[in-house]
Parts: sequence; C-alpha cells; structure tokens
Amino acid sequence: MASKKWPRKNDAASIQARQEALGLDGEVTGIDLEPFATAQEMLTGAAVTPVSVVGPIELELGEYELREPDGEVIETGRSSDSVFVPLAHTEGGLSASMQRGALAVAESGGFRTYVLADRITRASCFVCASAAEAVALAAWIEGEVDAMRTWLEGLDDPSLSKFAQLREVKTHVLGPMCHVLWRWTTGDAVGANMMTRNSYVLNMGYVMEHAPVKPERSILEANMGGDKKPSFEYFQAGHGKTVVAEATLTDDAIRRVLRTSADDLLDLAWAGTHGAVASGMQSVAFTPASAIAAIFAATGQDLGMVGTSSMCHGTGRRVEGGLQVGLRLPGLEVATIGGGTTLPYARPWLEVLGCAGAGKVYRFAQIVAAATLALEISASAAMATAGSAEFFRAHHERGGLR
Amino acid sequence: MASKKWPRKNDAASIQARQEALGLDGEVTGIDLEPFATAQEMLTGAAVTPVSVVGPIELELGEYELREPDGEVIETGRSSDSVFVPLAHTEGGLSASMQRGALAVAESGGFRTYVLADRITRASCFVCASAAEAVALAAWIEGEVDAMRTWLEGLDDPSLSKFAQLREVKTHVLGPMCHVLWRWTTGDAVGANMMTRNSYVLNMGYVMEHAPVKPERSILEANMGGDKKPSFEYFQAGHGKTVVAEATLTDDAIRRVLRTSADDLLDLAWAGTHGAVASGMQSVAFTPASAIAAIFAATGQDLGMVGTSSMCHGTGRRVEGGLQVGLRLPGLEVATIGGGTTLPYARPWLEVLGCAGAGKVYRFAQIVAAATLALEISASAAMATAGSAEFFRAHHERGGLR
Amino acid sequence: MASKKWPRKNDAASIQARQEALGLDGEVTGIDLEPFATAQEMLTGAAVTPVSVVGPIELELGEYELREPDGEVIETGRSSDSVFVPLAHTEGGLSASMQRGALAVAESGGFRTYVLADRITRASCFVCASAAEAVALAAWIEGEVDAMRTWLEGLDDPSLSKFAQLREVKTHVLGPMCHVLWRWTTGDAVGANMMTRNSYVLNMGYVMEHAPVKPERSILEANMGGDKKPSFEYFQAGHGKTVVAEATLTDDAIRRVLRTSADDLLDLAWAGTHGAVASGMQSVAFTPASAIAAIFAATGQDLGMVGTSSMCHGTGRRVEGGLQVGLRLPGLEVATIGGGTTLPYARPWLEVLGCAGAGKVYRFAQIVAAATLALEISASAAMATAGSAEFFRAHHERGGLR
Amino acid sequence: MASKKWPRKNDAASIQARQEALGLDGEVTGIDLEPFATAQEMLTGAAVTPVSVVGPIELELGEYELREPDGEVIETGRSSDSVFVPLAHTEGGLSASMQRGALAVAESGGFRTYVLADRITRASCFVCASAAEAVALAAWIEGEVDAMRTWLEGLDDPSLSKFAQLREVKTHVLGPMCHVLWRWTTGDAVGANMMTRNSYVLNMGYVMEHAPVKPERSILEANMGGDKKPSFEYFQAGHGKTVVAEATLTDDAIRRVLRTSADDLLDLAWAGTHGAVASGMQSVAFTPASAIAAIFAATGQDLGMVGTSSMCHGTGRRVEGGLQVGLRLPGLEVATIGGGTTLPYARPWLEVLGCAGAGKVYRFAQIVAAATLALEISASAAMATAGSAEFFRAHHERGGLR
Repeated sequence: MASKKWPRKNDAASIQARQEALGLDGEVTGIDLEPFATAQEMLTGAAVTPVSVVGPIELELGEYELREPDGEVIETGRSSDSVFVPLAHTEGGLSASMQRGALAVAESGGFRTYVLADRITRASCFVCASAAEAVALAAWIEGEVDAMRTWLEGLDDPSLSKFAQLREVKTHVLGPMCHVLWRWTTGDAVGANMMTRNSYVLNMGYVMEHAPVKPERSILEANMGGDKKPSFEYFQAGHGKTVVAEATLTDDAIRRVLRTSADDLLDLAWAGTHGAVASGMQSVAFTPASAIAAIFAATGQDLGMVGTSSMCHGTGRRVEGGLQVGLRLPGLEVATIGGGTTLPYARPWLEVLGCAGAGKVYRFAQIVAAATLALEISASAAMATAGSAEFFRAHHERGGLR
Repeated sequence: MASKKWPRKNDAASIQARQEALGLDGEVTGIDLEPFATAQEMLTGAAVTPVSVVGPIELELGEYELREPDGEVIETGRSSDSVFVPLAHTEGGLSASMQRGALAVAESGGFRTYVLADRITRASCFVCASAAEAVALAAWIEGEVDAMRTWLEGLDDPSLSKFAQLREVKTHVLGPMCHVLWRWTTGDAVGANMMTRNSYVLNMGYVMEHAPVKPERSILEANMGGDKKPSFEYFQAGHGKTVVAEATLTDDAIRRVLRTSADDLLDLAWAGTHGAVASGMQSVAFTPASAIAAIFAATGQDLGMVGTSSMCHGTGRRVEGGLQVGLRLPGLEVATIGGGTTLPYARPWLEVLGCAGAGKVYRFAQIVAAATLALEISASAAMATAGSAEFFRAHHERGGLR
Repeated sequence: MASKKWPRKNDAASIQARQEALGLDGEVTGIDLEPFATAQEMLTGAAVTPVSVVGPIELELGEYELREPDGEVIETGRSSDSVFVPLAHTEGGLSASMQRGALAVAESGGFRTYVLADRITRASCFVCASAAEAVALAAWIEGEVDAMRTWLEGLDDPSLSKFAQLREVKTHVLGPMCHVLWRWTTGDAVGANMMTRNSYVLNMGYVMEHAPVKPERSILEANMGGDKKPSFEYFQAGHGKTVVAEATLTDDAIRRVLRTSADDLLDLAWAGTHGAVASGMQSVAFTPASAIAAIFAATGQDLGMVGTSSMCHGTGRRVEGGLQVGLRLPGLEVATIGGGTTLPYARPWLEVLGCAGAGKVYRFAQIVAAATLALEISASAAMATAGSAEFFRAHHERGGLR
Repeated sequence: MASKKWPRKNDAASIQARQEALGLDGEVTGIDLEPFATAQEMLTGAAVTPVSVVGPIELELGEYELREPDGEVIETGRSSDSVFVPLAHTEGGLSASMQRGALAVAESGGFRTYVLADRITRASCFVCASAAEAVALAAWIEGEVDAMRTWLEGLDDPSLSKFAQLREVKTHVLGPMCHVLWRWTTGDAVGANMMTRNSYVLNMGYVMEHAPVKPERSILEANMGGDKKPSFEYFQAGHGKTVVAEATLTDDAIRRVLRTSADDLLDLAWAGTHGAVASGMQSVAFTPASAIAAIFAATGQDLGMVGTSSMCHGTGRRVEGGLQVGLRLPGLEVATIGGGTTLPYARPWLEVLGCAGAGKVYRFAQIVAAATLALEISASAAMATAGSAEFFRAHHERGGLR
C-alpha cells in the first residue's frame, strides 16, 4: 500500500482498516483505543507494559513556589512522606534492586530532596546580515524582556499559553547568528508545546517586527538548548526541574541490607567517576535511566525525554557513621498535568504517588529523584559486592552465576 | 507499610495484596499479569500506550553476517522493502510527521541503510597496586584475548552464554586502574545480561586467577563504556548496532510534500549544527529520541536505552536535483529476541515489522534508522517552513497558531 | 645534587652557581637576566624565539568601556586601523600564511571585530555538612553579592586589588558541595592573581565568617571554571575577553589571493565541522592555537593559557559576491599591563601593535581575534586547494611535495 | 604600508627594512637573527623569555622501542635518574612550586613513568557520492593498509619521509563522508609535516587513483583528529606520546614539605574532580598547562600544541603510609629533533635534560610528565593548605595575603 493511501484518521473504521491491512488481531487490538483518539494519529493498537510497585520510599521533601517575577524556586516548607513508586518495565531485577535501595535508605533515616530550579527553554536563532547586526540584535533582545512579557500578556491569541511565563533570555552570538534561549516556566506541565507556541509568536510577532534591524531569518529551534538531546547546556544550566537528592547510609544498613561496605562503595565511586571522565560521559552515575524510564512509562511522561531527564551527577563521601550519597538531576522534564499524564492508565499511577493534577509537579520531581537514587545505591552495592572472590566462588560453585 | 513488609512475590495473592494496599482498581488492574510474571518483580498492574502505525517506509536495506573470528559485519546482499512502523507514544503530531517524512522519501526513491558495526561492551576495571602493575596487566590482557575466548568456550557453566562472543578488548590505564572494555557480539539479543555474566566470569575466573600480578580489586562495570548513559566513547566507537541511513530528497518532494526548499533546509542545518556545538551536544540531530522511544515502547526494547540509542549525527548537502540527507546512529541497542521482545504486545508489533525472532536484528536496526530519519526530515521541514512570514501570518490571522 | 641544595635565589652568584652546576655557557647564558629577577625563581638563562611581523591587518574595531555596576561591555565607538602583528614561533609557513589571509581580507574590505564580554572567574567550592546546607549556602551567597562588593571596598588590605571588581556569582550545588564561580573584571590585566587574592579573602573572611551555617571546608579553586584547562563552561560562557571577528571575502580575493573558491571553502567547512563533532572537539576551527601562541609568545602573555585562549567557534556561509567568515573566541585571556607584558622584549612588540599599557586591552583582544581569523582563512584555503588533482600533479611531478 | 608591499624575505636588508618601518630598535633587534633565517618568514626581531632550572627531579623511567610492524611501544628496560628541568616563563611562583613538588616526591622515593603509546594522526576525509560509496571506501581502505605501506616505501619522492611509518587506519563514515585517521609513528620528531606529506600522497596518489569508486573530493585534514585543538579523540586515544607518571607521597613528605595532609589533598581531589565534570572539562587536573608551556618554551617545542599536550587525567588515592598520585598525559606532542629543537637556545636546554637529538624522545616525554606531576602536587597542596582558617589568619593579620 502506498504511503499516500494509508488511512490517517482515528475513527473506528480507519483503525479497523489499518488493523486489517496489517493482519493484526489478538491482544494488541483488544484494548479500547477510544480514550486515546486525540493523543496521536493513525491509532492501530496498544502496547502494554507490566507495572511493579516498590516502596515505601521514605523521604523528606520540600514544598516550593515560584517567586514573581523572576521565577526563582522558593522553598515554603518541608515535610516527610512514605511513597510507593510504580515502575513500568520488563528488566528483571530492577524493581527488586530499587526496593533494596529504598530499604537501606529507610533504615538510615530516609531521603532528603530539594528543587533548585525550574525552567524550560526554546533555543531559537536569528540569522542576521552580519556579526554587527547579530551583536546589536542580542543587545536589543536582552533589554526587551520586560516589554516582551507585557506584550505577550496583552495578546488574546487563544493558541498562546498563559501558563508559560517568560523568565529571562540568554543570547549567544556566533558569526551572523544570534542564538536565543527563551527561558520559561510552565506550571505543572512539561510545557514543550506551550512554550514553543509562545516562543514562536515572540520570534515572528515581536522580534521580526520590532528589532532595530530585521534579521534575515528566524528559526524556532536551532539546537542551542538540547530538546530531547543531552547537552552540556542542559547538564549544567538545567532543564525542566533541577533536583538534588541525598541520603546518609549508615554503616549498619550498608552491611546488612546492601551487603557491602562504605569503603567498597567509595572505591567503586572512585573508579566509576574516573571511568566516566575517560569515556567522555556527561553523566557521572550508574544506571539512572533505568529508573527514570520505568517511572516515565508508568506515569505518562514523554519517553523521548528519557535521555535528557536521566542526566545525573552523583557524589559520595564518608561521613561519621556511614556514607553520604547525593544525586543532582539537572533536567527532570516531568509533568503532573497535560500530555500523556491525563490518559487512562497513567493517571492512576500518578495517584498512587500522590502526584495527579495541578500543584504536584515539584513533589513528583523529588520522588523521581529519590527513587533514582535508591536504584543507584542498590546497583552500586551489587557491583561492589560482586568484586569479592567469596561472592564469585559461592555463586560459581553453586552451578553458575545468576 | 514498612519497606520490609511490602509483599515481593508475583503470585496472584501477592499481586492482589499490593493492589489492595494501594487502593488500585479499574483499568490498570484489568489486564492479565500472568504472562509478565517472570519479567519483573512486585507486579501490580499495567500501563497501556496507544500504538499508531505509519508507513509504508520504502527502503533498500542490507543483509549482514558476522565474519569469524573478528566479528566484522559483512554485507551479503541488499534488497528493497516496504515497511509499516508501529509507534507507541502520546505525542500529538509525531506519527503524522513521520508519515510525511516517509512519503517525501518514498517519492524520492526511498531510504538506503547500512550496518557498519555490531558490538556491546562491558567496561570493567582492575585496580592494581600501582601504575606499573596496571600497565603490565593491560599488556597481558591484550595478549590473552584468544586464550580467553578458548577458555570461555571450554566452560560448561550453564549460566554463561554461548551467544556472547568476545571479539576484542580495549584497555585504558589511569593511575593504578586498568580499565578494560570487553567487546562482544550477542546475536539478535541486546545481550546486556549475557555479556555481563561472561565478562564477570572472565574477570573473576580468568584475570583475577591468571594475571601475572593479581589486581587488588575487580570491578565489573566502571563507567568507561556508558551503559545507558550517552558518552563520547559510544558516540564515536559505537554500541549495539552502528547504522547509517540516507535518502536523497528531490526538489519536487521537498516542495510538494515538505512545503519547503532545499536551501531553507540547509540554512536550518547550518544554524542547528552550530547551535549543537555551542550547547555542548554530542548528537547533532533534531528529534531522534522521539522516534526511537516510540518504536522501542511498541516493540519491547529497553526504554532505559532510549538516551544512548538516540545518539545521532545527521548531515545534509545539496546534490544535483535535491538534498542528500544522512543519519549515523552509532549505538542502536535493539533486539528481536530476549528481554521484552518476547512478551505479549511487543511481539505482534515486531511481526508487523517483519522483525520477530532470530536473524532479524540487522533488519530491525535498519528500519529504526530509516524511521528516525523520516521523522528528522519532516520535523526539520516544519521548522524551516515556520520561519516564513507568510506561514506565520496565515496561521496567526486564522485564529492563532496550532 | 639534592633538590634541597639547589640554590634558589636570583642574585648573580646563585645564577652563576646554577649555570656552572649544569655546565651551561654560550648563548643561553649570554643574555642579561637582571631585568627578569622578579619574574620567576631560580633564573638560570634565557630562551630566544625569533619574531616575524606580518601585516598590515586592516580592521574596523570597537572601543569599549565597562558599564557600572554590572560590568557589561558597552561599545562607545568604532574606528578603522592598519596593524602589524608580531609572531614569535619557529613554524615555517605560519607567518606567510597569516600574511596571505590578511591580504585577502584587506582586498575584501577588512576585518570587523566586536568585544561581547569581559570576565575572569575563580571557581571556589564550599564543602558543607549536607546538601541542605549547600542549598542554603548557595541561596545566601547569591543574595550577598552587593554586600560582598561593599565589604571588599572597605578593606584596606594592601594585598587586595582595587582593580578586580566582583560582578556576579554563579552557584552550583552538587551533593554537599556548593561550587561558586566568582566572576570579576580586572581592567587591562588578565588579573589571575588579583582576583585570586580577592576571591580568597571573600571565601575566608566573608563566607566562612558570615554564612548562616559554616561550611566544613573552603576550597579556593575546585575546577568548575577551567583555569588553563579548556572546558565547556569557558567555551560557552567565556573567560577573559569574548570576541567575535568577521570578514566578507570577495570571490575575487578568494580566487586571486587564496587560489580557491567559495564553494571549495564551504565544502571544507562542512566536512571539518562534522569531523570536529565526530571527534568530540569543543572548538570548531582550523588552527587557531598557532596564531594565538605566536602572538602570546611575542607579547609576554601567559603561555599556559594558549589552550583556553585558543578555544574557537568558526562559521562560514555564502553571501552575495563572496563568503562571510566569522570566528567567536570566547576566552581570550590577554593583557596589556602586568605579568610578562611589562618585561623587556614583550613591551616593544605590544608597542608595535599600539597596545602597550593601560586602556588597550580591548584593542589588543580584537587584533588577536582578527589575526587568528587571518590564519584560519589562509590555512583553510591551502587545505581546499590541495584537494585538487591539478595541484597534486603539478607539485608531485616537479620533484615532490613541499 | 599595504600588505602587498610588506617585504617578505629574510635577507639582512629586508629584516632591517621591516625594523625601520616599525621604528624598532633596542633589545628586540639586538639578537642575531641569522640562525633563524629558515625557521620562519618575515623575521624582524626576537622575543626573550627567562629560563629557570628546577630539580633535581628523581625518577625511574622506562626505555622503549617500537615493535615492527605494528608500532606498539615496548619497554626494554628501566633505569633511575636525577634530572634538572628548564622552565621558560614569567609566572612568579611556578618554578618554586614545581621545585617543592619535586622535593616532596624525591623524599618519597621518586617518580615512576611509563610510555603507553606513540602515534600521530592526520585526519583526512573523502567526500563520496553517497553513503553507499563511503561505506565501500572505508572497507576498502581498511583492507589496503599493508599495500599502502609497501607503496609508500617504493616511492622515491624526496619530499616524503621515511621516518613516518603508517601503522594503522581508522575510518568513520558519516553520510557521504569517509573520514580517515591515518595513524603514524615519526621517530624522535613530532612529525606533523612529514606525516602530512605522506598522508597527502596517500590520499592523492593512492586512494584517489586506486579506490574502487573514486571519491568526489579528498580533504587532507578535516578535524576528526584534533590538530592543536583538544578533542575527546585525543584525550582518550592519544596523540604524540601517551605517558603515565606516578608517585607515592609519604605522609611525612606531605606534612613537612607540602604542609598539608593526605586527607586534605583527597578532599581537594574529590571536589576538583566533580567540579571538572560539572564544568565540562575534558582534563581532570590542576594546572598542567603551566608546566607544559614552560618546558615547551625552553626546549623549542611547538607552542601551538600547549593545549593538546596539556590534556591530562589525574588520580589520587590513599595507600598504606601515604598518597598515591598519578597523571595520564594522553597527547604529549614532543620532539628531540626537528622543528624548533635544533635552533640556538633550545638545544642547550634539551642537553640539560639529557634529551638532545635522536633516540631521546621517550626519555623527554617521561621527564615532561614527571615535571608536570611535580607541579600538580605542589599546586594542589597550596590549595589544600589555603583552606585552613589558621593559614588565612596568619597571613591576613601579617599585612595581607601574598
């Protein structure tokens, strides 16, 4: 069948036509697609991933609000909670490992989490006639941010989002190009679409109309951010929610629950950090993407953002009585409203987390960070343990490794 | 409920106990979990993602086999095919966009794809007493590869995999550390587990036993690879399948299907490539992760590998009559057997692709690469079009942007 | 002779004792060391590098001053000039090549240069008891910048520099670490020492004394900047002077002077940019370090900063009638006063440039950028030309390549 | 004076004409330029840098030769030596600091150094009609290396170098581009020119003539290496000489000579390594470029290679009785013959090192590595000490910091 003739609609007849054309029946066609009819085009069937639940994860987390007008994340309180975390995946051992990490931390006093920042960026670019004009444009744009904010508020274009607030702008001149990172907050949604629309109208309706010298070309997205692509810009400056998680493992929990020692974990961290540097890895961490992907798949997050949201920088050091471990997640692109979060199956899992709906996104980001650190801890411990000759012999002699 | 008491088994009673403890009912508990009972621990429910199917993608792809004993990927033939591609996601517009890219390429003569390499690595590390010993160990290991291969074949440990073939080793001495990248082929599976077990037995049973000077510590994974973490090592040297996809868009298809021009696309590529460099992005591409994640979610691939498998390097240049666009995907970690691929829901979608089971992995990798390029093309075209004042006015005046 | 007994002073007797101990005589001991007696310890002789002078480089450059109190670089005027550039090196062909590039640009209307920013940073780190304290410390530091500036001005410690002005601070929390980039301007000096001393007193006398919770440890420099080490932080955010240089080569100059074509140069740029990405290079450029090192060696700049000051991002595109080429140098660490610039031999070469002494550093930075671009242009042209079969045959048949 | 009229020759009259045109006299014109007449074009004067000598550096170093035909570096013996190191620079404190580091190591048993690899690369690129042709070309080139070597040996083109030996090739296909890293050894010279000429003749005379499908374009250097530009390719795979240096500092030497403790140094290393990661630095080190630049300037090395040769990866860990510190320098581009090394002033300083002339380059590379580590140790110790409140108060109260 030619590409042009492939039916594109999501009415029942088109869905069935596609299923029949592909000879599909059975389980993948057995789930009602009607609730998903507006979620994407050319619906044909379904994919199911089993979901485990681990927990409770014990954590002390912050409550936050955005300060106006600069959009700084301000902590307004802290509280403790026990949370169960849904994980959609098919990787044997992952759930059990996170559970073990959660237990070790629970016995050590729990996780502590902090939201440091909240921004989402659209990296536009204006191609000018010359570097001189690009330099002038950059200076002009930097001085117009307040005016742009006012202008946006005054538009009554229904396609624009009032949730997306322009917070600041960063320019980067490169030859005749003036790259511009529009930096937004978008409430409890990831906000990719809303800030894209708002950035677009800023580019076309404000910059291209009012700039002192009109650029030759306006490009909505020109990669200086890193949309769904890990970048140093994201790793350092952050994207989505920037979160820090920490736990102080007691020597006792390390020994009893994790079956290793603080020294062995530190030796592993030392070799692993230097290995990461030697391989040109931006993230210094163990297996954060396993945790992020599993929570994202259960809760309707954008799976295309697994790579960027999994950027991590982990640290560990010996402290009195144990090991202090921390994880900085600079770019958690998470939502509790919008996108896939409102669809069937996703929403109940967000409810298990106490994170469904508005006002929950900082809570959600912090739980994701804590759960990711739980897996880091346990996976690292397994690695550290495995290095001992006793462990190897015991397993090898009993009929091989598992 | 304390972490220790959370039921861990996957029998029906434990599953129900967890569901009840969380107050879960309705759709997420309505899917039979029995087929997933060995896929992960603490099963509690399910997540459903709607699947669209786009196509046909017209492509000319290669047939490959591994040359023994060096494991080079050798092309044994080429053929043409039309393929429909399942996409599990909830991102409006993604499927339609890939469809448009596929159409533009179909009208331009189709995709051409090539598999360049096939390796999966475990990055172990031996911590020695000194740099002198690490240097000596590295030299010894490099000379032992043939002997190690023979030794592995002679073991009859049932936990070891005969599919995982050690191909070569790369050492990297850093102070007293001898980092070692064991490089394997693993047939049609991603092979993470099998090469991990084999690497482990090599480390503990061969290196630690036979090295001229015994290392102080053996670490199974010390980050010099990049397991689920994008790294320059993966970006350049590859991981999983290294695939190149190419298409030559005709000026006509660019104009009629993509609604833009080769010049506009090249200007976008120019700004986007330099934007990527300016933001410290390893991948130079537009939105490969959206395509990779959607195919992975439909076909039971490991979603934790979305970030690494989405590393990409795209290029474009004007040729007689149109635009030649290419995409190098250095690290496609894909499988047609093992892991989630054999589970319900995943397998039918692999069958739609003609990629279920043994002997299909190079085909699958090439289709993924072509589909990813299809989305790149269409998304780039949308970006290029959006920059025109006519486009903006037309949409803005008709009640806002979409 | 044991290390402890090696004479350390710079009096004539100690110098002679070292010369005799090493059996040195002849040219390296024939230069009067007295003027260098305070420049470094254990003086023993001299090194001489021959200096060529190329030019004139025709350029239009900006005049700048710092806006108070934010330290933004403001352009106050522009003028044109012809400059001769001294190059200390022994690389045959380098001077001739830069001369050719300068000529091609002179015939095309000259260089245009712009200073975008001016900062030097000290990357300190405070290790706190926990992430909670590091987060609190970061918030506190960010709110104290004005108070710190006032406090510094009030100190009458003669070791502190009044030239070094604290402009802003950037914090980065990582586990219990609060990394802090103190960002300074330092007038016409590079200012490494002055901002180090001022940062140190800020760390020890302000932060450690007044922070709401006292950090466990203060570290003056903890690598989050990149002191003499190229880093993405420097590449993007800049260090020293951030300068953009541009020229628009006419097709005629490209053909007659550079012996190539705009198309060939663009093809080279395309392959070279993608090659740079593929090799994990931060700089996208051809051979900037050759130019930077040669100017630095002639003018008494810090040669340890050749790597960081050579970071570059070059771009090129076809424009009406020719080729527009640009170079962004994010981190030119140059001085016209202080350090080696005031020593014999360096100062006359700065005078040739019209850059000796106070008030000249932005002029100097712009000339360095233009000269670097001159070499880029000519070296690229040589590369582009060399690819032609005619060129190869002509040279090969006439007795081999040169 | 117009660029075209600037005299270009190096005869006495042209030199004097340039000096007069610039109004130059005095010291910069007082040094005889005749010995430099073939070193570069448009000679006009001289630059002088004072040279200190520090030492002795006590080290145990290896003797090496290249194994034929694969060019692996093989250790044939080890010996101990005491070496004095010349440093050309004007950075107060640098020489004294390296001296202190050397003393601390001498009292701890000396440095140990190892050469791991020796290669220099030219990164050419062949632009083909399509990815298909680029893939085919890459496969063909990889199979032709032995034939290429024989072909090169058979040429009697006097411009080619017999010292430059082709060792292996690495290809990287990217769209229609086939990037090729020609990897050479070049004896005791850096060999940039000789391998460039040989690579060029390979490209034009072998590949372009004999490839199964002729490429559209041959580019001699397309940035996939990193010529004078730091790159991940160089950082990991090496360039020039790859050297590891190590020392085990005793607790006593750390306390008495370095005035700090192993714990303080380890805390500094921990914060500094993580700071380097956070700033996107390829090198994890403290101030290697200061040492490299000073030795390069004294011994006639190419100062444009300071950035690449200063790439470093340092490590440290506690061992029984002290601290084991190591430094990997992946890309020391050093020579003992050719280029600036044979010129006046450079050669005597190479003689001080016992490194003048043929057969000395591995010795030289190892001494450079040891000296660089000496400075790293002392500079780190200064940083670690400075953090103490006692140190601050003592210095501050006695009239300010130094």
